[in-house]
Parts: sequence; structure tokens; C-alpha cells
Amino acid sequence: MKQKIGFLGLGIMGGAMAANIHRAGYPLMVYNRTAAKSEPLAEMGAGVASDPRHLAQATEIVIAMVTGPEALDSFLWGPAGAAAAFNEKKTFINMSSVSPRYTREMAARLAPTGVSFIDAPVSGTKKPAEEGSLVILAGGAQDKIKELEPLLLTMGKKVIYCGDVGRGSMMKMFINLLLGIMMAGFAECLNFGRLGGLDFEAMLDTVASGAMNAPMFQVKAGNLRDKNYPPAFPLKHLAKDAKFVVDTAYESGAPAPMGQMLLHLYRLGVAQGWGDEDISAIAKAFEHLSPATA
Amino acid sequence: MKQKIGFLGLGIMGGAMAANIHRAGYPLMVYNRTAAKSEPLAEMGAGVASDPRHLAQATEIVIAMVTGPEALDSFLWGPAGAAAAFNEKKTFINMSSVSPRYTREMAARLAPTGVSFIDAPVSGTKKPAEEGSLVILAGGAQDKIKELEPLLLTMGKKVIYCGDVGRGSMMKMFINLLLGIMMAGFAECLNFGRLGGLDFEAMLDTVASGAMNAPMFQVKAGNLRDKNYPPAFPLKHLAKDAKFVVDTAYESGAPAPMGQMLLHLYRLGVAQGWGDEDISAIAKAFEHLSPATA
Amino acid sequence: MKQKIGFLGLGIMGGAMAANIHRAGYPLMVYNRTAAKSEPLAEMGAGVASDPRHLAQATEIVIAMVTGPEALDSFLWGPAGAAAAFNEKKTFINMSSVSPRYTREMAARLAPTGVSFIDAPVSGTKKPAEEGSLVILAGGAQDKIKELEPLLLTMGKKVIYCGDVGRGSMMKMFINLLLGIMMAGFAECLNFGRLGGLDFEAMLDTVASGAMNAPMFQVKAGNLRDKNYPPAFPLKHLAKDAKFVVDTAYESGAPAPMGQMLLHLYRLGVAQGWGDEDISAIAKAFEHLSPATA
Amino acid sequence: MKQKIGFLGLGIMGGAMAANIHRAGYPLMVYNRTAAKSEPLAEMGAGVASDPRHLAQATEIVIAMVTGPEALDSFLWGPAGAAAAFNEKKTFINMSSVSPRYTREMAARLAPTGVSFIDAPVSGTKKPAEEGSLVILAGGAQDKIKELEPLLLTMGKKVIYCGDVGRGSMMKMFINLLLGIMMAGFAECLNFGRLGGLDFEAMLDTVASGAMNAPMFQVKAGNLRDKNYPPAFPLKHLAKDAKFVVDTAYESGAPAPMGQMLLHLYRLGVAQGWGDEDISAIAKAFEHLSPATA
Repeated sequence: MKQKIGFLGLGIMGGAMAANIHRAGYPLMVYNRTAAKSEPLAEMGAGVASDPRHLAQATEIVIAMVTGPEALDSFLWGPAGAAAAFNEKKTFINMSSVSPRYTREMAARLAPTGVSFIDAPVSGTKKPAEEGSLVILAGGAQDKIKELEPLLLTMGKKVIYCGDVGRGSMMKMFINLLLGIMMAGFAECLNFGRLGGLDFEAMLDTVASGAMNAPMFQVKAGNLRDKNYPPAFPLKHLAKDAKFVVDTAYESGAPAPMGQMLLHLYRLGVAQGWGDEDISAIAKAFEHLSPATA
Repeated sequence: MKQKIGFLGLGIMGGAMAANIHRAGYPLMVYNRTAAKSEPLAEMGAGVASDPRHLAQATEIVIAMVTGPEALDSFLWGPAGAAAAFNEKKTFINMSSVSPRYTREMAARLAPTGVSFIDAPVSGTKKPAEEGSLVILAGGAQDKIKELEPLLLTMGKKVIYCGDVGRGSMMKMFINLLLGIMMAGFAECLNFGRLGGLDFEAMLDTVASGAMNAPMFQVKAGNLRDKNYPPAFPLKHLAKDAKFVVDTAYESGAPAPMGQMLLHLYRLGVAQGWGDEDISAIAKAFEHLSPATA
Repeated sequence: MKQKIGFLGLGIMGGAMAANIHRAGYPLMVYNRTAAKSEPLAEMGAGVASDPRHLAQATEIVIAMVTGPEALDSFLWGPAGAAAAFNEKKTFINMSSVSPRYTREMAARLAPTGVSFIDAPVSGTKKPAEEGSLVILAGGAQDKIKELEPLLLTMGKKVIYCGDVGRGSMMKMFINLLLGIMMAGFAECLNFGRLGGLDFEAMLDTVASGAMNAPMFQVKAGNLRDKNYPPAFPLKHLAKDAKFVVDTAYESGAPAPMGQMLLHLYRLGVAQGWGDEDISAIAKAFEHLSPATA
Repeated sequence: MKQKIGFLGLGIMGGAMAANIHRAGYPLMVYNRTAAKSEPLAEMGAGVASDPRHLAQATEIVIAMVTGPEALDSFLWGPAGAAAAFNEKKTFINMSSVSPRYTREMAARLAPTGVSFIDAPVSGTKKPAEEGSLVILAGGAQDKIKELEPLLLTMGKKVIYCGDVGRGSMMKMFINLLLGIMMAGFAECLNFGRLGGLDFEAMLDTVASGAMNAPMFQVKAGNLRDKNYPPAFPLKHLAKDAKFVVDTAYESGAPAPMGQMLLHLYRLGVAQGWGDEDISAIAKAFEHLSPATA
């Protein structure tokens, strides 16, 4: 008998993830601030909660996939917040991207309710969310994560155990730091090559033929070729992640020269008004800084 | 009937490349400053020239794979230099890594001899050189490069046409800039994660499971795990490449913030005495800058 | 008739500032967590409060000069906190260095008490504090600041009106950003010159003779010459200020490439264990990154 | 009896310096590629040479103040170049800004002529050149520099002995690195403050009141206030100096993170077309990278 799942937050990612849970046969109830986004799930047969507390009362496992700390605070502790319905029989899985520090504070605040708390952000964007091929970065009690694996694998292809609560968020920052470096690095290299007279396709071909070839380069190359950046992962979110990285590095003493460079570059992209475009729009920053006539 | 090949420079890369030419059945003559390095080739049946000019006189196509401009200058225009034996019937292929600027100057200096000059550095290090799976980045007359393809493919798996003479070197800088960014970025991320309490293997697993996975990460991970950096590509060479990048970016006006960061980091690695270790030894720079007790 | 002043926080800076207020003839009561630090003031004739609330009850103007937000939170809202004794007849002047964001939050939290709140951090370190020659960067109601000027000028040589509450802290960050850049820049230049064979005194002489000569260079030169860094302004405080700058720049969208470089450098200094030395100890970071034999 | 002086290069700096030599009563002959620039000196009574060799033949001490290595190469070794007229009785003083490396190469190339070679770039721009208040950074034989001091002091207020030939240029790079850092730092701070709501004059006042106050800030403030950047020191020259710094730091192993940041920023300024404006136009780079609406 499958557990009853409550899903909070039905944006691009959350909507696709909830749909995959439903398809796998779990009884599902959803909630989203903008009610219209619940409709596709309701049409598939999911229940729709009137508020977060109602959702938490009616289900055994609550999953959140929202935009950040403000939304989480509101869902958990705002009016009709879910936390008031949590108890030792229930499980709360936060899959939203937040900082390790916020995650640890959230864990401390949830502790008195007795709820099992799992920190499980994901690596992967829109397409893997739709295909159920996300990589799930889980922090918390290892046996509990093991127990939840069948559920998590309806959304992802793999669960990576990262350590205690907060380590899932830490791993997410680790991988997004690498993403940010590779995206900005790719853009810098292509612009450098362009100004040196190289052909775009020849550069791509060189990357594709060697040890630096990563799937993301082929995925993002189309945007850079067409100078069109439909958001798979909005640039402003990576700017936010870069800030988390710099904050976390400040606390741990980790040298993060490239992370700081990213914060500068992606924040500059937001300041130029490109925050809602894809992270690959960072290519525009390099053009913006190049000689006009080149 | 295969052309007679002369090969100058039998280091780690050159020795392996010359051996592959020989294995493919081309008549081969070699020359190396340190004569001992010619022995393995001689044992395979290659001829050994007494000096670069002798090599150029006795062959139709001269290939150079040396450490940089000084060695090239010496081989071409030093005592018993090869350039004096060049003429319109001969071809000179420089596969050594040099700057685009030096390449263009070399082309101008060679022009009066009438020799066909091809600029063909490679992407790939020791193992691909041995396996004949390098990627060859060729600049020069396109029909000439087409004609040389069978020869080049004895050393590599692919020839990428990059444009005029100098563009091969430019492409090499492009790809080595990406290499340098990804290597330093990987090291920064792993150190950041370490100080945040993450497990090395879990980090690797996360990288391997997502869109950022590039073959080089798996190749270099062993060095970082073992803190042992046997040189496949010496760090000092990447420091030199980073300097070429910064010089070239200065001339073209290309913004190169990450390239400059690399110059800083890899040069720092050389200053610390790690120049002869592998580029993955850049990981030590991040540890060097981290809190001692972490 | 001079107003009764309460002074919270008697560290290096606060002790000297309180002494100057006393010398100027204001009735003074003090409080410090570590009671021993109140003794010199008590010997001069100042009253000693038993707790912050007592101090606020017994005086008309409360001044705080503490190490940061935690200390302020505790003094104002902790057990026997001062805020409970504030009312519309009283004035609270925060001279501690905190972020503009914290200052605005503090203002909002104090508003219900009716207290007049002035944000007045200082530019200058130990010596100017002792000599009463600080520069006071005041934010808040302009007429109130005008009214307080005689009091403020017992501690400083000048009051600069910076705008609304929070702008004093913003100005402090502005000037400390410049301080951090000039200190790190000076250290980088001297190390660069040293490795280029220049004599330390000749470099100083060159700086002193031209348009870049700033008093701080002469003040700090002795530390760099002697490689001894007694704290006038602890390096860890500048690391903290650099973090405030990066946080504030992130919010406003201000490009802060040099600010981010500072955060990297000074944080690295803290990680190396130099946090309690003077900011001029940043010179050690440049040596730490230099070739050993040079 | 004063020595006969030959002066090569009559730009903004050179013209003013030559005039000061003449006013001090030295017999003076001048040469400039664009002949019109010799006229003001001719009207003052200076001789005008027909070419650099003529100048060197007719005088005892030749001073060059030109734009860089190309001009120096041409004046010394081009058609009718001065070097052919040098001998052990003559002295050549290069006051142009060039790299230490170029200076050492020039010294080696001049050695066979027997000429006494002094490396003496200056700190200071247009106004100090006119007022004879430059700081002269001299490298070469110390007794020779002592002997030349009266001549040098017609152009400057001070001669700083920097060491062997090449050290004058090294000192010039040292001081221009500091200049570049302070100029860019000032611009970053003012833009950061502006976006944080601070008033321009209040910021200036804060700088002027504290230990960071350097004459250059007051000198450049007017340009930043008016957003008008008439060239006292063209931005493109500082970009060139930053490149010299990065090149020199690469060779010596000196960490130069701020120097590299400068290269990025000033080169970006040149790429944007501001190369002929004053270095203070770097302020535009910070605005260019800021949110449009702020």
C-alpha cells in the first residue's frame, strides 16, 4: 500500500515531479499558491488541498518544491501553515534549493514537531524533471532515505546519499558551482575564440571531440548559436546560488575565487535585465564587455 | 607511395606520435636534441638524422613537436637549421603549442622558402598520443590539409579545420582555456565541498550523474583522491598557455576574467614548485589557501 | 546643562571615546560585559551601570560601540536590555560598525519605543579614537544630528551628514572598501616590487613623493618593514566588512570586482590564522603566494 | 659650463620637460617626428635637429621621452638613428615608460657603443611636467645619476635612485600599479556608494577627512563629478602599463590579483572606446556594469 503524498509547489519543476509521482500510482494531493497551476494535476486525478495545513493533515509524506526560503517559511509557518500538522508519523522532504544554513535552521525549527525531515534538492532542470531522470541529493537519516527511495525514484534516476540534514543542500551548491563555472567558462571561451577568428561550429566540434566534452555544452550550444536563451534554468537562480556559495565559503574559509567571479558575472547579468533568461544568457555579458566592432 | 616524413622532437608526445606514423608504414626519419630519445624509434626501423637540416633535406614532410618557440627557432634557424633546406616541394607541419602571434610570425619568416606551412597543434595528452586518438587542430590552406589528412590520421582520430595559418594555434588556446577553467573549477568545487563536509566519492558520483560530466573529471579524479599528480600534462605548460590566452585577449579585446584567474592560479602553482606535476596539482593551490585545521 | 550620557561597550575604541566624553564634562555612566573594562572610567569618575537597562534608565543619550549585531541584540533586547527603557525623550546612537541592512532592521524594531535613533559609525582607528579626531558618519534626522554635534565632536574632529538612518553604515562600508583596496593594493605593489628587485625604502619614497601618497601608507609602512602587525584595526574586522560590501553590492547590483577580490584575500588571511593581527598583515598573503626562493 | 642636451620626443610630457631644461639655461637641441611640435621650443631659442643622429652628434646628453618601444627603436636604430652617434663620452637617458625587460634589452644593445645609459621614467603627469615637479625614478650607475642630478632636477622635484638599469622602469611599474588600483578602487567605491544612496560630495568629504586621502582623489574627483574625462594620463596608457605588470609578474612569480583585475578593467575601457580619455574614465566601466535604472 503506497503512502499518501502531499506536494507543495507546482512550478516548472514541481509540476513535472508531482505528475511523475501520480503516474507511479501514489495517492497524491497538491497545493500551489496560484490555484490555476493545480488544474493539470487535478485533471490527472490528484486531490487539491485548500491550504498547506490541510495538505499536511491529509497525507503522510509532504514534499516541497518551491522558490526559496520565503515560500518555505510561508508554507510551513504562515497562516494555515503545514508545520502545525506535522508529527512523528509524518515525513517532510524539502526538494527546493536553499542554503545549507537555512536547511539546518529549518531542521532545528521542525524538530519539536517530531516530523522526519529529509533535505533532498535535485540536480537537473526541466527536461529531467519531466522524464523522471533527476539526480536526487539527499541529506538526513540514512535508513529513512533508503526507505523513501522508491518514492524518490519516481522523480529521479538516482538518489545520492550526501550525509546529515543540510548536506543535500551543500551538495546542490557544490554541483551548481561547477555548473556556473562551466557555463561561464564555455561562454568566455567561445567569445575569446570568436574574437580570434574561429568559427563557432569548429569550436563546438573541438569541444565535442575531447576530454572536456560534457552533455551540457551540447545542450546549451544551440542557445549560444541562436543568441536566444529560453529559460531551462533562469540566470537569476544561478546568481542566487553563487551568493549562497560565497556565503558558505565565507563561513568555512574555503577559497572560492571562481565562485566569486561567478557571483560578479551572473549578478551583472541580472543587473542588465537578463535574470529571467536561461543561464546560458551569460554569453551576453561577454559580448557586452567586448569591443563593439569586433 | 607514401611520402617521406621527418619528425623533430621526441618527447612524451612526439615520441608516441612518430611511432604511430612509422607503424602506419610511412618512411620515417627522426631527430631529437638528446640523441638517446631517438633510440626506440631507431630500433623500430626509423632513420636518425644528424641534424635538422639533414632531416629536412632527406624528407618531404617535416613535422615538429617541440616545447615552444625557442626550440622551434633553434631547429628551423639555428646552426644546421631545417629552414635552409625548405622549398616549394616540401611541407612543414608545426604540431607544437605556440601562440597564434608566433605562428603568424613563423609563417611570414618561412614564406620566402616556398614551403607549405601547416599549423596543427593537438588536443589530447599522453594516452591519446600513444593510441593515435588525438584531435588535430589544423590551420592553413584547406586543400593542403585535406591532402595531409591520411598522414595526420595516423596520429589522431580527427582533423578539425580551423582556418588560416595561426587559427590552429588559436583553437588550441581556446580548448586549453576551457581545460584550465574546468580543471581549476573542479578543484575549487571539490575543496569547497570538502570544507562543507561532503564525501569525495559522493561528489564524484554527483558529477558523474549529471550534465556536467566530462571524461576529464573521471580521468583526473584519481589524482585528486590520491593526492598524487603524475604529469600527463604538466602544470607549467598550462600556466604558459594561460599567459598566451591573456596576451591574445589583450590584443583582441576579448574579456577574459576566468582566463586571468587561471593565470593567477596556475602561475601560483608554478611559484610553489609544482610546475612539473600534472595540471590536476592545482588542487594543492586550493588546499594551500584553506584553513589548516579544516 | 549637559545631557547625561550612557556608554555601552568599552573596547579599544569605546573606552577611548567614552573617556573623551567624560573629559568634555558630560555626566557619564558606562556599561561593559566584562566589568574590569569599566574600571578606568570609574576611576575617572564615571558611573557604572549594573546592566544595560539600568544605564538607559539613568541617562538621556545612550551610545553603543560594540563588536557587531550579536552584541547589539543582546544589549538592546537581551535580559535587562536597554530597549525596554527607551522612550521619546531619549536618544540612541549606534556607533558600532554593522551593515546598512541590520541598521534599518534595528530602526524598525526601535520605532515603537519612540527613541530618536542615530546611526553614527566612525572612520578612524585606535589613535584617532584616543585623540578625539575620529570622523563621524551620521545617518538619521538631520536636525537631531545637528543638535548632537557638540557631543559627537568630543569624540571626533568632524561630523559628516550621510542621509537617513542606515546611510551612516553605508558610508562606513564605502570608506572601509576604499581602505581595504588601498591596504591590499599597497601590499601587492610592495611585494611585486620586491620580487622585481626594488628596495623597500625607495618604494616608500616614491609613494610619498607623488599623488598617491595617503597618510595610511606612511602609518602602515612600519608594520610591513618590520613584518610585525600589532592590531590597530584587526584583519578579521576588515574581512567582515568585505562580506558586508559583497552582500550589499549583491542587493543593489553594484559591480564590486575589487570588493570581491578583497573578500577573497582578507578571508584567506583569516583562514591562515592572522585574523587578530592588523589589516596590514594582508602583506603575508602576498608572500604566502610568492615563490619561496625569491 | 652646462652640457649640451638633445631632447627626443615633444609630446605633452616631453615638450614641457624640454622647456624646463631650456629655462634652466642648458644649451638645447630638439627633435620630434611631427616637426610642428618643435616650433614652440625653436621660438624659445632651442636648436632643431634634422634627424635623431644629427641630434646625438651635436649634443652630449640625449634624453628620450616618447610613446614606447616602437618609437624608441626607430629613434635609436631606424634610418638616421641616434645610436650610431653614441660613444663613451655621451650619455643617453630614457625617460619614456617601457617595460623593465625592454630596458634591459636596450641596455644590452647599446653596450657596444660605450654610451652611459640611464633609465629614468617619471612619476607625474602633465601638470608636474609643466611645473618641473616630476619625481624621477632613476636606474643605472649611481655616481652617474648623482652627476646628472642638476639636469634632472630642472624637470623634477626629486630623483629617486632605484638600482641598476631597468629598476627605474620597474619602479615606474610599481607606482603605476598603485595608481591603477587606487583609481579603479576609487571609481568602484563611488559607484557602490551611489547605488547605496550616498551623496557624491559627502563621499568625497569622508575620503578627504581620513587616512586614505591622497592628492589624486581630489585631483580626479572633478572628472567623476562632471562625467568628463579630459586626458591628463590616457586610459590606454594605463592599460598598457597593466599589461607590463602582468607580464613582469608572470616572469617573477609575483602574485598580482589586483594587477590582473586592472588589466581586465582598463582593457575593457579601451575596448569600449575610452582609451584616449583620462584614466578616471574607468568610472564609466562601473556604470556600464550597473543596473540601468539605479
